[in-house]
Amino acid sequence: MATASSGSRRKASRRRPEVELLRVGHRAGRDPRLTTHLALAARAFGAARMYLHPPDRDLAARLDAVAVRWGGSFRVVPTDDWKRLVRDYPGAVVHLTMYGEPLAAVLPRMRRERRLLLVAGGAKVPSELYRLARWNVGVGHQPHSEVAAVAVTLAELFGVPGARPFPRARQRVVPQTRGKRVDQRGEGGRWSR
Amino acid sequence: MATASSGSRRKASRRRPEVELLRVGHRAGRDPRLTTHLALAARAFGAARMYLHPPDRDLAARLDAVAVRWGGSFRVVPTDDWKRLVRDYPGAVVHLTMYGEPLAAVLPRMRRERRLLLVAGGAKVPSELYRLARWNVGVGHQPHSEVAAVAVTLAELFGVPGARPFPRARQRVVPQTRGKRVDQRGEGGRWSR
Repeated sequence: MATASSGSRRKASRRRPEVELLRVGHRAGRDPRLTTHLALAARAFGAARMYLHPPDRDLAARLDAVAVRWGGSFRVVPTDDWKRLVRDYPGAVVHLTMYGEPLAAVLPRMRRERRLLLVAGGAKVPSELYRLARWNVGVGHQPHSEVAAVAVTLAELFGVPGARPFPRARQRVVPQTRGKRVDQRGEGGRWSR
Repeated sequence: MATASSGSRRKASRRRPEVELLRVGHRAGRDPRLTTHLALAARAFGAARMYLHPPDRDLAARLDAVAVRWGGSFRVVPTDDWKRLVRDYPGAVVHLTMYGEPLAAVLPRMRRERRLLLVAGGAKVPSELYRLARWNVGVGHQPHSEVAAVAVTLAELFGVPGARPFPRARQRVVPQTRGKRVDQRGEGGRWSR
């Protein structure tokens, strides 16, 4: 492989697609941990927001609190009509499903898009999704987890994120070989232990 | 980067570490979906087994059923004494935590091991783990999900798996641009729709 000059690399990274996530079929009454993990993983690995159908006010508030502490602009956006979102989406809709084409085959095309909407299928995905999506993509073709599928897709697109804090973070992890270190940002933007 | 000859590539892949997973602090009474997702993701992305503390017979049986249908030798192994498992482990124990060293920094050392035990921390990980582990590793340094951490670590180690069925599978996905196709293996090992 040719090594990109730093100039072209910078250009490529400026063009990276904006990635959003749609979670269909969330059950607010049941255990919210799975959707919480999905939202946190999406945020941590570089998604801009998660559309949530049906809406769940508590979950959105919990994720907002994470964004206040840890920074960035990730938000949970309630969605009453997921079908319209998918149909009218101004970019490529990528339905993550173990039945789809291999991620490696679709990834080069995904990189060329300006906006991607990943749709995290659960067990009971409406079958219309297969038709409405631009691409149906398998992150592996074994039964596994939408949390894993979203995280691995984002890591393949953007790489595994480093320790740099998100914009406007109030706290950040300083990586350690043992134990935990979380620094706080005080008045004036200075970080301290 | 130099391109490896196919000979050396084969040699490298023969030497890939065996990866196992330890899940500590599972709560069988509560919603089992999160641990199920963790086990399925571990299996799908190439782990050999998941040690589960405390044991959960129902979950182990469900995962066994997946392995019968979809092949491979992944099993859920009940564990009463996770501390002894970690202490006596004949390989490198890798505690996945957002507070640890960046994955990219540790990955080259992980690849040189023969056996790796990933420990999937939840919110309430015993603090001894930080001391007992060979490495504390952050897959990103934002709050996210142990399902994501395990899947991304395995994908970084082994790549995203293709569509080849696992050994002794009774059914397999044949990737499609639209819809689902699952082939069955009949008598004599022949695959059919």
